Order: sequence, then structure tokens, then C-alpha cells
Amino acid sequence: MKINSLVTSLLLIVLLEPAIASFVNTEQDTSAYNRPLIHLTPNVGWMNDPNGLFYDKKTSLWHAYYQYNPNDTIWGEPLYWGHSSSKDLTHWEEHQVAIGPQNDDEGIFSGSIVIDHNNTSGFFDESIDKDQRVVAIYTNSTPKTQTQDIAYSLDGGETFTKYDKNPVIDVNSTQFRDPKVFWHGDTDQWIMVVLKSQEYKIQIFGSRDLKTWDLHSNFTSGYLGNQYECPGLIKIPIENTNEFKWVMFLAINPGSPNGGSTNQYFIGDFDGFEFKQDDSVTRFMDAGKDFYAFQTFSDNEKDVVGLAWASNWQYANVVPTNPWRSSMSLARKYTLDYVHQNAETKILTLIQTPILNNLNVTDKVEKSNHLLTKNNTIITDFGSSTGLLDFNTTFKVLQGSGSNSSPKLEILIHSQASNSSTESIKLGFDTSVSAFYFNRDIPKVEFNSNPYFTNKFSTYVEPAHYFENDIPVYKIYGIVDKNIIELYFNDGTQTMTNTFFMSEGNYPHQIEIGSNVDGQFELQSLLVRELNK
Amino acid sequence: MKINSLVTSLLLIVLLEPAIASFVNTEQDTSAYNRPLIHLTPNVGWMNDPNGLFYDKKTSLWHAYYQYNPNDTIWGEPLYWGHSSSKDLTHWEEHQVAIGPQNDDEGIFSGSIVIDHNNTSGFFDESIDKDQRVVAIYTNSTPKTQTQDIAYSLDGGETFTKYDKNPVIDVNSTQFRDPKVFWHGDTDQWIMVVLKSQEYKIQIFGSRDLKTWDLHSNFTSGYLGNQYECPGLIKIPIENTNEFKWVMFLAINPGSPNGGSTNQYFIGDFDGFEFKQDDSVTRFMDAGKDFYAFQTFSDNEKDVVGLAWASNWQYANVVPTNPWRSSMSLARKYTLDYVHQNAETKILTLIQTPILNNLNVTDKVEKSNHLLTKNNTIITDFGSSTGLLDFNTTFKVLQGSGSNSSPKLEILIHSQASNSSTESIKLGFDTSVSAFYFNRDIPKVEFNSNPYFTNKFSTYVEPAHYFENDIPVYKIYGIVDKNIIELYFNDGTQTMTNTFFMSEGNYPHQIEIGSNVDGQFELQSLLVRELNK
Repeated sequence: MKINSLVTSLLLIVLLEPAIASFVNTEQDTSAYNRPLIHLTPNVGWMNDPNGLFYDKKTSLWHAYYQYNPNDTIWGEPLYWGHSSSKDLTHWEEHQVAIGPQNDDEGIFSGSIVIDHNNTSGFFDESIDKDQRVVAIYTNSTPKTQTQDIAYSLDGGETFTKYDKNPVIDVNSTQFRDPKVFWHGDTDQWIMVVLKSQEYKIQIFGSRDLKTWDLHSNFTSGYLGNQYECPGLIKIPIENTNEFKWVMFLAINPGSPNGGSTNQYFIGDFDGFEFKQDDSVTRFMDAGKDFYAFQTFSDNEKDVVGLAWASNWQYANVVPTNPWRSSMSLARKYTLDYVHQNAETKILTLIQTPILNNLNVTDKVEKSNHLLTKNNTIITDFGSSTGLLDFNTTFKVLQGSGSNSSPKLEILIHSQASNSSTESIKLGFDTSVSAFYFNRDIPKVEFNSNPYFTNKFSTYVEPAHYFENDIPVYKIYGIVDKNIIELYFNDGTQTMTNTFFMSEGNYPHQIEIGSNVDGQFELQSLLVRELNK
Repeated sequence: MKINSLVTSLLLIVLLEPAIASFVNTEQDTSAYNRPLIHLTPNVGWMNDPNGLFYDKKTSLWHAYYQYNPNDTIWGEPLYWGHSSSKDLTHWEEHQVAIGPQNDDEGIFSGSIVIDHNNTSGFFDESIDKDQRVVAIYTNSTPKTQTQDIAYSLDGGETFTKYDKNPVIDVNSTQFRDPKVFWHGDTDQWIMVVLKSQEYKIQIFGSRDLKTWDLHSNFTSGYLGNQYECPGLIKIPIENTNEFKWVMFLAINPGSPNGGSTNQYFIGDFDGFEFKQDDSVTRFMDAGKDFYAFQTFSDNEKDVVGLAWASNWQYANVVPTNPWRSSMSLARKYTLDYVHQNAETKILTLIQTPILNNLNVTDKVEKSNHLLTKNNTIITDFGSSTGLLDFNTTFKVLQGSGSNSSPKLEILIHSQASNSSTESIKLGFDTSVSAFYFNRDIPKVEFNSNPYFTNKFSTYVEPAHYFENDIPVYKIYGIVDKNIIELYFNDGTQTMTNTFFMSEGNYPHQIEIGSNVDGQFELQSLLVRELNK
């Protein structure tokens, strides 16, 4: 599907003359069909993996680049780094395209950005603020080879100049990509994790100047799928301690156990040369189907913050959105904590917390100590209709009467009532299974019959805690933004990220919470909000 | 749901007087609603994990025991070892219940059987054939503890006498179970793999006499889920070599990435004391949702043969079958081979081959070098209607015209035409995604709306090989038996096992193969058969 030619022309001007192009700062146009309000999307065209995420300390701006095809809403070459920025990680503005390939059958594939504070690369002089010495490290993909190349920016990440001696790493491979680079202070060197994708090798390189790289080691582990993509390595704090662990992130596509794309992580130590996993345990990041190519932001020392592409290669090219395709997940804060996997064992687990700033609450519903009954659901009735809602509940599972063998708490998210036929997605918890379920099937929308667009999901989590020793307590936070829902169970010890597609013109408006039994679920607290940017 | 009281009474007589009970050899009654013809099911009552699988060399009989509740069609205590046997692994006969618990709130939980040829246990004298010295090792589960107990049989596995000094291992745990025992010739000892289930420890014990056990080591790896269940350890040959590897099997429930129950395996070496994984890679056994608690048969040295429970704890208790619930998978032969995961890498992978013997082919359809076209599907039209069908096809993916962005080959399995409304499940391959999909949704059947009964599945496999270097060739073998479908891709390098539920009275009858494009899929060979016992 071609986007309109005016936009294409505008983009081409920008691309042909990057040095003189004026900045194109555009707020997300949320009038477009199905376009989320606060999830990063391109105004037009195709987006996939997040790239070059970094925080500019001087301007306090968060920059996100991404795999971008401005010429179509499906993946295709020439492939660029698109660019957006945000003051608060919630409101995004689109910039001009940042980096483009030499030829039309090539792509600037995934990679990362570092701030070269000490000018190790020699690309900068004193006129460039130490916090804005932006160097991009990315894969230059051509029909013949994938190499690691670098480019630098003298204007805070707006435009880039390619290093004239590229590539910086060339191993004569067509499957060698996705460099994520960071400064390792203990050994005074830049570290790159990059993939021999189809050899299942995360390669760890070191460099003093971002130009000359030495291979230190290879790391292989976990669930292999068809190939490795988009690695990452970062130190993450363990909650309520002064300790931290190194966490290696790794995407897999295709071949996820759920189909298509998924993200996993490994916990261990890193000495500047080798990553050593603490255990040989495979951990997936998200229980949904739309969380891929996760990357963390460079140069924000305060917290570990990252985001992922919220789609799946099994259907990304055909989801019903227009004139844009694909969004990112919300930015999330990352910590580690010991989490109960069962009654006897806690294991170190990634804790994900959504970052939401500067949102207007247009309406809300609150309840506390509310016992759900069979015939009375809680239904929100918001006056406006932004398509952006969140809900937060802590509930107790009381002893049931035994009259129903499958007692459920269910949260339905309905489209606005103004439409003739209401459409809904649902989330629930069945005490006989002790797992949360989610269903995104909306039969009226033809796309939803796509055989790869899995509609039923579930995830097992232990209770967040027990009330009076034997009453299980669970927590759910959910945020719904036009066509994406992010679920955080038990304070983010488990997440589930899924897109969904209602009929054109329909989007989430109303939330209904109910049960098929009397008195078994007590909402200790509930807050449902309608939000606006 | 209570089974009829006559059957209950009969079973109780058997249970109360095991020593004098006559053998109850009953062919599978396939007239019961939805009951498979050749997949092992109990005539009445509830079944879960396979237990004590062994081959009797003297009688050439295959014995399968299983977790069995004769008093209901849901799991419940007292829980017994049910018992069936087969001459050919395809036709099963039910025997009397084999082992029962002491008290009604207890269960004889999962375990294994060994043939104690050399009477290391001292339970046998010369009157018992060396190949029939049957010892069962199982978990005795009480409200207070799970211990490993043993029992022996002097009548070839029909009735058992519990060892009077049970338990043989007691570590004062309520989560300690599922012993699988085998003879390790190199170190002249019995080896038991057993679980500290919620500590994620596969414990390896050794014994000279099956009575006194020493802990050798612990093994933890892979995808943890909520808890470990049903381990297994066996030497498996690598195809086309004289080599073998030790393979550790491990079930997970709940917490599978697909929801609920799943099975994984690890490849490595075993020296009689410690299992060492070759890599820290997580491998799942099956891409469906109904393959759990896999176990191999003892004492058949020829091949490695095993089977699994073909259900999932998320919905096993509520599937619409009556007066029985749950079936086993087909028995499968296991080997290892190096299989392409992508263009660059082969990894050692479990190869699964279904075992089918002595079946009557009641009708068949054959094709070769058949180019699929958009408007002409291949439809089988079998006269009879057994509900048991298989299909075997090798197909080429030719260069498409590009007119359809999502070219599919699709195999539909329809219910018999005599019913007013035909119901179907489908299997397909979309070249734009390069993955097989399967859909078991039959909206008319209320059970299928169960939120945990996932209906859409997919699995990525590399082509089996290439024709003339660039035309991908794939193979599918599928067998459909009333309410279960087992799919074997590329000669069993990947499998997908799923139950499905048509309306009462409906079962698979017709197979339709088609495409949404002209000339892109060539069936190099196709054989569809209707089978009967």
C-alpha cells in the first residue's frame, strides 16, 4: 500500500539533502485509523525494530530511531532509520529520517547509539557538548553482505555523517547484524554485542575508539528458534539491594513457541570480555505475541529504560492500519527481583514498569473492598472517547461455594457504545486453572481470522502475596491504547503485550468487570481511568 | 460426572481383591462419544500421565499403566495405576487396575517399571521368568508427603505386591515425585531420575537393589514454568551413525509458553552419576498443546519408544468426552538427527516417528506431481466413516506469480457429510510467513470457547530439502483419530499434537486440499487413507 506521494516527495527532499533539511517535528497524528495516542508510531510508512535509543542529558530529550520504510506500509528497501523524540517517554514527536542507505536495494539495519563523551572516536571537537557526541553503530545490509558501520552526528542526533572508512567490522557474512554498544568503565572500552544470527552466536567485541574492534567471546544459550536477532547487554539493579546483575537480551524470529517473534533474556555476570550466565534457564520477556527486538536507552544512568517493537513478523505486514504500520511498546523501567515461581522457589526475574507521564485523566471510576456478584458487573461510563484507558486492580480470591467448577473474574474492554455493534476483547482469571487468560478475537474484523494472529493467550503467575496466609491476592495493571493492550501482572513480574483490531472507527471505550459466581472475588482496590494526551 | 454404578462396582471388586481378580481384558470400545480408535484411552473414568511403560519380551506385549481415577471423569483421589496392553502399540486392551493407594485421600502417582532380570531386589525366585521380573517404582502421595515406593509383580505386571519396607526414598517433602528408573550397565546400578518438583531439581539417585538409594547429583536447566514433572533419561541413537546421546526429558506444568502443560528435552552425556548437557539450549518436544508427561518403554532394547498424555491441565478436566476422559499420544519411535534450523546451522534434534501396525486401509486417494489450482481442490470421498484418517504429502513451493501476497496451501479435515452442517479443522502453509499453521476452532461446540483452549497454532520449520537447489520441499504426515490430530513435519523433525472437538456425532471423514493461488504448490506425492482397526 503506497502512502501519498506528497509525503514521499517531502521525505525524498529530506533524504537527498540531509545537511540542509529543516527539522520535521510533528506530533503524532492520532486521527489516523487505529493510531495509538501514546505508543510511538510513524506518521506514515512502515516501522519495525527500535534502534539507537538514547537519552540526551543536555536537552533532556529521549531519542528513538527505528527501522523505517517511508515509501510503503510494508517492510522494504531502501530501509532507513526513522527518528522520533520525547520529553517524557509518553508524548512523541517525529523528526526527519536520520540515516539512509547508499543504494535502493540496501538497508540501514538495526543498531544502537552511544554518547562518546570523551571523543574516543575523534569525530568531535570542543564545540560539541560532551553529552551530545552522538555515534550510531548499525548494520549496513546489502545483497552481498552485512557489515557493522558507524556514523556520527554533530547536531544532537538529527543528521548523521557516515564514517569514511566504514565498515568497522566485516566478517564476510550475510547474517551478521544488530550491534548494541555501551561503555564498560571497569575495562575502559566500548563493548559491542552483535550477532552471527544463523550461527546462534552473540559475539562480544571490544574497542577503544569505536573504529577498531576485537572479538572477545561468543555466547549461545536459551531458546534458539530460527535465528538470533537484536541482542543487548546491560547492568540491572536488584530491587531492595545494592546489587545488580548483567542481563543479556535476545530476540528470536521466527520460531517462537507462540509463533513468530519473541524476546528472551539471560541473567549473569560480565567482566568486559565474557558473559557468564548464572544458570542455564530460559526466560521469556513477555507472554503476548507483540513484543520484539527489545532495546534499552543509552546514556540515562538513572534507570534502565527500554522499549520493544509491538508487533510480530507473522502478521506485521498485514495488520489493518493506515497510512502507518506498527507501534512500539510503552517505554518501561527495568529492575530485577526474586519472584515466586511456585510455593517453594523464588527466582531472579525481570520486573517491568510502564512509564507514563503528563497524561490528563478525563474520567475515572474507583472502588474498594468490592465483592463481585454474578448479576452485577462494574461498567464504566465515560463521557468522552479517547481510546486510551487504564485499569489497576488488586483482588482476593476467596473460598468459593463450589457451585461453579470454573469460577472466573473477567474484565471486558468494549468499544464505544455509539456504534451499532459493540466489540470486545477480554481478560480473565479462572480459579480452577489459576492462570490469567486474554482473548483478542473480534470475529467481525476479517483480519482477525489470519491463521497466525493467535487470539487466545494465557499466563500462569503465583499470587502476588497471600492475605491472612491463605487467601491469594493478585494484581493487574492494564493499559489500552486504541489497538494495543499491555498487561502487567503482580507489579510487572509478568507482562503480556498484544495488539488487537476492532472494526474501523471502533476503539476501546468502556470497561466491564464481572464474575460468573457470587462472592468469590473481592476487588480490594480498583481504579479505571480514561486518559488523554 | 459419575460413571455408571455397575462399572464402579466391578472396579471396586477388582480393587478390593486384587490377588484373586480375573483379568479384565477389554478391547477399546470405540462406540463411545468421541473415543479414538487407536489412541490409548480408558473405557471409563479419568486418565492422565503414562506410567510404568514396559515391554514384556516373553509375551511380546507392550504394557502401559497410567494415572487413573475409575470413579469419575475428572482427576481425583483415590488415584490408581490403570493398565492396558498391546501386541503392536496400535491396538490396546484394558486390564484390571494394577496398583491402588492405602487410603481414599491418597494416590499412586507417576512412576516407572523395570525388569529386574538378575533379581537384584530379591523379590523373585527362579519360577519367575527373567524377562517378567516386574518392579514398579512410583510416588506414594498422601496429604502429608510424597515418597518413592516400590511394588513387584509375580504375574507379568497384572497385580502388584507393595514392598513391606516402603518407602524406599523419603526426604520429608510434599513435592518429590515421578521416578523413572533404568539399569545403567556401565556402572552396574539402577538409576532413578526423580524430581524435587518445586525446587526445579532433577535428582539422580543410584541403587544396587532398587531398595537403597544414594543421591548422585542434581540437574536444573531449560524453561522452568511453575514446576518440573515427569523426568526421563535414556540413550538415543543418532541417525546414520553408530553414535548416541543421552536425552533427558522433562515436563512442565503449569506455565508452558503456550499455556499449561508442555514437554522439553536436553541432550548430553551421562556417566552413571551426573548428566551433563551439551549446550544450554532449551528444546520443546511438540508444537501443539496436548503432549505432556512423556515416558519411554523399559526393556525394549531394539528402539527407543515412548508416548505422552495427549491433554493439557488447563482444560483436561472439562473436555467433552464421556464416559472416559483423556487419551495418550500414539507410541512413537525416537532417534536423533542433525536438522537445519536455518540455512547456516543444523542442530541435534529429536526425530519422532509414529508407530502404526496392523491397520486396515478401507479406502485411499493417491496423487503425484499434482499442481494445485485455485478453483480445484482435491476432496476425498470415502464410502465408510471410521473417524480414522491419515495423509502424507511432499510438496514443492514453486515461484509464485506475485498476484497474491499470501499464497497458501491448505488442508481441511471435514466431518462426515451426512450431518447437516459440516465442521472442519485446518492445517496450512503460507509462503509469506514460511510457517505451518493449524486451527482447531469449531465455533458451534461450546467447549471450544474455553479461554484456555487455544485454537490457533503455528510452527516454523526449514524446508526438508531443496529441489534443484532453490525450490523448497516440505513434508507433512498427519493422522486424525476421532478427536486428536498428530502432525509430523519433515519426517518427524517437528511434531504438533492437538485434540479437537466437533459436535456430538461428528468426526473426521473427508480431507480437502487446496490453494488460494494457481500453480504455486506442487504435490510431488499425496496419499490420503481411511483406516480401520
